[in-house]
Amino acid sequence: MARLTEDANGVYIIALTPFTDSGALDLDSTDRMVDFYMARGATGLTVLGMMGEAQKLTTEESQTYVRRILKRVDGRIPVVAGVSSAGFATMKALTDMVMDDGAAGVMIAPPSTLRNDQQIVNYYQQAADFLGDVPFVLQDFPLVTSVTIPVSVIQTIIDQIPTCVCLKHEDWPGLSKITALRKNTEALGKRRISILCGNGGMFLPEEMARGADGAMTGFGYPEMMRDVVQLQRKGNTARAQDIFDAYLPLARYEQQPVLGLSIRKYIMAKRGAIASAALRKPGANLSKEDITEIERLIERQTKRLRELGA
Amino acid sequence: MARLTEDANGVYIIALTPFTDSGALDLDSTDRMVDFYMARGATGLTVLGMMGEAQKLTTEESQTYVRRILKRVDGRIPVVAGVSSAGFATMKALTDMVMDDGAAGVMIAPPSTLRNDQQIVNYYQQAADFLGDVPFVLQDFPLVTSVTIPVSVIQTIIDQIPTCVCLKHEDWPGLSKITALRKNTEALGKRRISILCGNGGMFLPEEMARGADGAMTGFGYPEMMRDVVQLQRKGNTARAQDIFDAYLPLARYEQQPVLGLSIRKYIMAKRGAIASAALRKPGANLSKEDITEIERLIERQTKRLRELGA
Amino acid sequence: MARLTEDANGVYIIALTPFTDSGALDLDSTDRMVDFYMARGATGLTVLGMMGEAQKLTTEESQTYVRRILKRVDGRIPVVAGVSSAGFATMKALTDMVMDDGAAGVMIAPPSTLRNDQQIVNYYQQAADFLGDVPFVLQDFPLVTSVTIPVSVIQTIIDQIPTCVCLKHEDWPGLSKITALRKNTEALGKRRISILCGNGGMFLPEEMARGADGAMTGFGYPEMMRDVVQLQRKGNTARAQDIFDAYLPLARYEQQPVLGLSIRKYIMAKRGAIASAALRKPGANLSKEDITEIERLIERQTKRLRELGA
Amino acid sequence: MARLTEDANGVYIIALTPFTDSGALDLDSTDRMVDFYMARGATGLTVLGMMGEAQKLTTEESQTYVRRILKRVDGRIPVVAGVSSAGFATMKALTDMVMDDGAAGVMIAPPSTLRNDQQIVNYYQQAADFLGDVPFVLQDFPLVTSVTIPVSVIQTIIDQIPTCVCLKHEDWPGLSKITALRKNTEALGKRRISILCGNGGMFLPEEMARGADGAMTGFGYPEMMRDVVQLQRKGNTARAQDIFDAYLPLARYEQQPVLGLSIRKYIMAKRGAIASAALRKPGANLSKEDITEIERLIERQTKRLRELGA
Repeated sequence: MARLTEDANGVYIIALTPFTDSGALDLDSTDRMVDFYMARGATGLTVLGMMGEAQKLTTEESQTYVRRILKRVDGRIPVVAGVSSAGFATMKALTDMVMDDGAAGVMIAPPSTLRNDQQIVNYYQQAADFLGDVPFVLQDFPLVTSVTIPVSVIQTIIDQIPTCVCLKHEDWPGLSKITALRKNTEALGKRRISILCGNGGMFLPEEMARGADGAMTGFGYPEMMRDVVQLQRKGNTARAQDIFDAYLPLARYEQQPVLGLSIRKYIMAKRGAIASAALRKPGANLSKEDITEIERLIERQTKRLRELGA
Repeated sequence: MARLTEDANGVYIIALTPFTDSGALDLDSTDRMVDFYMARGATGLTVLGMMGEAQKLTTEESQTYVRRILKRVDGRIPVVAGVSSAGFATMKALTDMVMDDGAAGVMIAPPSTLRNDQQIVNYYQQAADFLGDVPFVLQDFPLVTSVTIPVSVIQTIIDQIPTCVCLKHEDWPGLSKITALRKNTEALGKRRISILCGNGGMFLPEEMARGADGAMTGFGYPEMMRDVVQLQRKGNTARAQDIFDAYLPLARYEQQPVLGLSIRKYIMAKRGAIASAALRKPGANLSKEDITEIERLIERQTKRLRELGA
Repeated sequence: MARLTEDANGVYIIALTPFTDSGALDLDSTDRMVDFYMARGATGLTVLGMMGEAQKLTTEESQTYVRRILKRVDGRIPVVAGVSSAGFATMKALTDMVMDDGAAGVMIAPPSTLRNDQQIVNYYQQAADFLGDVPFVLQDFPLVTSVTIPVSVIQTIIDQIPTCVCLKHEDWPGLSKITALRKNTEALGKRRISILCGNGGMFLPEEMARGADGAMTGFGYPEMMRDVVQLQRKGNTARAQDIFDAYLPLARYEQQPVLGLSIRKYIMAKRGAIASAALRKPGANLSKEDITEIERLIERQTKRLRELGA
Repeated sequence: MARLTEDANGVYIIALTPFTDSGALDLDSTDRMVDFYMARGATGLTVLGMMGEAQKLTTEESQTYVRRILKRVDGRIPVVAGVSSAGFATMKALTDMVMDDGAAGVMIAPPSTLRNDQQIVNYYQQAADFLGDVPFVLQDFPLVTSVTIPVSVIQTIIDQIPTCVCLKHEDWPGLSKITALRKNTEALGKRRISILCGNGGMFLPEEMARGADGAMTGFGYPEMMRDVVQLQRKGNTARAQDIFDAYLPLARYEQQPVLGLSIRKYIMAKRGAIASAALRKPGANLSKEDITEIERLIERQTKRLRELGA
């Protein structure tokens, strides 16, 4: 399988982990979900991410799940696996496991204990030393990690660590970071790495305009991200924003902390991508008011997309 | 001046603090801003809030500013003042000052040191004891305060402290809290207090549908909040959501941390509500990319509102 | 192997994880360390704790290490294993593994996302449901977990969950919690569970006087904890405090964040309990100034203990 | 009054704010406390600090209190005032007030929102610009501020801001920072500023040995700090440590979060330095168990000091 490179672009969907109603790993739904994502323009998949309930899986289940994903994908698109761990030994073991099974690269978020520039650089240097030649995605997600990584530190990591090939950009929305990194490339000749953006796609048109290469996030309607990325790349920014705006009310609704993943799974189950919307415990349940709101937002979204001829 | 009551509703706009380019308090703009808000449907104003740069004013400046606001408002609508302080003595002094000058009530956020249910109840009980018969707004804003207040604690405060007349609801979005509190009133006969919602209006249609009485937040186009609140109250939810959706791309953009206030001030200055978009230091500056994006979003918003006949 | 019960008392030492200089698990030193602890009065051991570098081990290494410990202990004293995990599936898998191998019980710290009373109770109820009849230690360590557990919540957990048999008390120092829990037993007839205290023994005389049953913590000189616990239980509080005071300067020094574990391993290697003082990466190194200070403190401690005839 | 300089040394005691039992500012006790501190070797005082209940005073009370302190001190020793504020306008107003009244300098802690190296440097540069030629103390207290300042950042501030004349060192215990800063002076010729240490004196012997110039902290027995600093400076480290060890059990006890200030005020009232041990609300009350423990620790301390001939 080809390795992840600085050219990564398009839509790397953060894959869900499907469970049955009773909380068991649902491998049939895993296949169906892969098909669903690929049919809606996924150019890559990211598994074992924070929104993938990775932390609720045992090591064995993680391997079973990733293998199933990789088998179904069958080399057609690259698969990145989240390997953030409290220690490097576990990170290395997890990385070896997924790379042996055919993953294209891994993703690493900084531990919340890092508290200044040098500590962050050191951490990624140590991680890279452990992982050898495995390409990795630097996940910049301060809302969850509590670690704020300034542009200068990201640039230092790019300068010093050749296996850092991609930034998962999720400093909400941190548009100026994209601008600054691209200027570093243009004005200073710095190595250009891939920038894929998170935040449920809530700032995707602006992120693309600033120089991002695509999205790495999840949303119940991943075709929104495919369309916005493709239209932006063709320079059709007005149409990109029209499509984006049609999905925005629901995307916003799905961005609720705690409830967000339950909403996304509800939509995915409704669309037939997975069999059950169940989260493994602990996980929030939707109320009937939540479901009424989701249904109304979907209905309005469908109507608006029709008006737009999309 | 009438006091704030459980019947507070409509749109309580979180007022900006206008400065000149050199960072001095701009009192002429303060007048103009009050007129601007009232012309766009403000049913109340909230001053010295977190988004009002209150923390950058000296005590003397705070008094000068609040007096100017109160003089211009001239009793037409109630004015609430944020009085959250590290100590009760300062909170009491600030409360006495604004109430003497004619404010209708005060707003209190919990200090970030509170760590469990009983501590939160005790804190508000002590604050209420200090403030005597002054009505207050309980500000529930965990993203900033780091204090998560469960429904049961809010209900206990409502039960035990009669001067708590309003909840500023900003547990992003925490829609289930509104539902639960209203059910407590309906099913258990609990005292009904006003619920006004924050979050820049990003969930206003859903909040109103759940039982909120209006908004207490800011946005460069406060008429959005007026229209959504009024339409929802008339039961015209489809139209409310249409109007809301038209403003949502810009509202979302204004919700950026760090940059948000600069964006709001830029819009307010552009619309003539204040003379200068300057923040007092420390404050973020907009880049030319930011401004391009804002201008494009405004243009698209204007066009979409025209399509909707709004 | 007997299960952990409410009668747990004495000194449950938080065991180190010995590594070779190159970072491999050192199983010979693991044996030696067990002998060292037992010769110095350990009435129990706690493995895979926060200070045991558990988070740096892979799942396989954790099992190898715990098995070695259990084999060497050979049923003479109970062994508790830390099983705190991001998800219940991993917690359950880890628990099954260590209990099958002969552990006496497990220890569970609350995840840092818990933010109010009900969430904490729910979390432990869910964990207990997953673990079935396995007895567990509730770890109350707010400095690290950011979760403050009020006495009322601990009492509710004791009331509702019979498998909660011990509190690892580490709310620095939180002496009033011990007093309150013991009063609940005396005055209200509440179930009495074991209270074992952490914090490197820094408040052990006071904790014992308040009603604790012993210590569950680490220190390069575990005989201090044995002596203080035994003397306090015999009512010889003056002598207990004399012995404690002699060790306090070094105990204090070992309580340094970041450096603390390196200091403890240095002492343990110096005393022959383990072969190498090395921490697995990432871990702090001692400077020559640090080592000079440790050596001087040990020298003074030896002298003072001699003066006391200990 | 002379200004604070890089030569500051000895013991700058963090002064209490005395209140009457009913919570009013107790100015007579303020005089008595100043006399008490000066009789026990204070070479400076620090007022309006975190442990001084500064946050519970109104602006007027702060001025009244600081003026009373300055009048009683009457220029005999320098007085530093904490001026950390949410905004620079308030910081400047407070600084002007205390400097006009005769303070020697001010102390500034970083706001908890600072998240990387450049932000910290910028913040102090902006603060210094506002304060003009007023000398200031950089307060490095991560446990409370959540801001970790690496040595390189402290050095940059020393390099770029000549009015930064002193570091209040309280990165618990962060001994390596002192070593590194002193090496920067010796090896690189960097400007040498004063380093005064906090943490209730819990690491004072080691801090002095590493190159600190004294203490800036509080403790019910400030003579401990005077003796340790003086003995260390004379090179009598064994005696310094003997004295230190005698006070350590109580110093440790006073370091309890939440309760610490109540304990210190209890001791100060018992010793006649202030009339009432009362804290202004909100503040913790001592239980009878707490008081029993304090009294026993004082008794043992007195006995041990007698044995040492101190």
